[in-house]
Amino acid sequence: MSSLDQTPLDPSIAARLKRTADGLVPAVVQDASTREVLMLGWMDDEALRRTLTTGRGTYWSRSREEYWVKGETSGNVQHVREVRLDCDGDTLLVVVDQHGAACHTGERTCFDADRLL
Amino acid sequence: MSSLDQTPLDPSIAARLKRTADGLVPAVVQDASTREVLMLGWMDDEALRRTLTTGRGTYWSRSREEYWVKGETSGNVQHVREVRLDCDGDTLLVVVDQHGAACHTGERTCFDADRLL
Repeated sequence: MSSLDQTPLDPSIAARLKRTADGLVPAVVQDASTREVLMLGWMDDEALRRTLTTGRGTYWSRSREEYWVKGETSGNVQHVREVRLDCDGDTLLVVVDQHGAACHTGERTCFDADRLL
Repeated sequence: MSSLDQTPLDPSIAARLKRTADGLVPAVVQDASTREVLMLGWMDDEALRRTLTTGRGTYWSRSREEYWVKGETSGNVQHVREVRLDCDGDTLLVVVDQHGAACHTGERTCFDADRLL
């Protein structure tokens, strides 16, 4: 067990979170300089704790059921500049310096390809 | 039944949506001019259809279990300029002209009050 795993999320933050039935909170990720909305990830308490502690965008993969650090595979890391919790405690806003493409498809953001309106 | 209720969401869009277990997709709402992330709402197929059809941000309230049109009570309406679907089909980005405060607390955005990092 690494030192990352030894302390839980700050209880005063944990008490303010309203989670989905599966214990998750959506995290909107925004580029600090361009203000683009890059992606949406999901965090449980531990992913949020790792994000706050390490300054690297860390999420819970609902499909793979594991933590993932953005850029760990691709090199397109996210350095976290701000994390905000919304008025209802059920959504996070993560403001990042995004290196390279934020989307696994290689697009700059996950919203570039499919415009409905 | 109003004319709003007579046609379902475009099947080619509905086929691309990946919904949560309760049939919803998170919708990130961004201000078209300031690029602020204003709020996160939830849409089912019908809320998305109404948003695309009427050009007014329309969401599903998980707590009240009903549709709500942003600004219907407060007057702080959202005129929708773009709707985008992300690479996985499981998140919407709604770009709006926001009149007045986007947050029910009176703050400009729902993320103004509680900064964690």
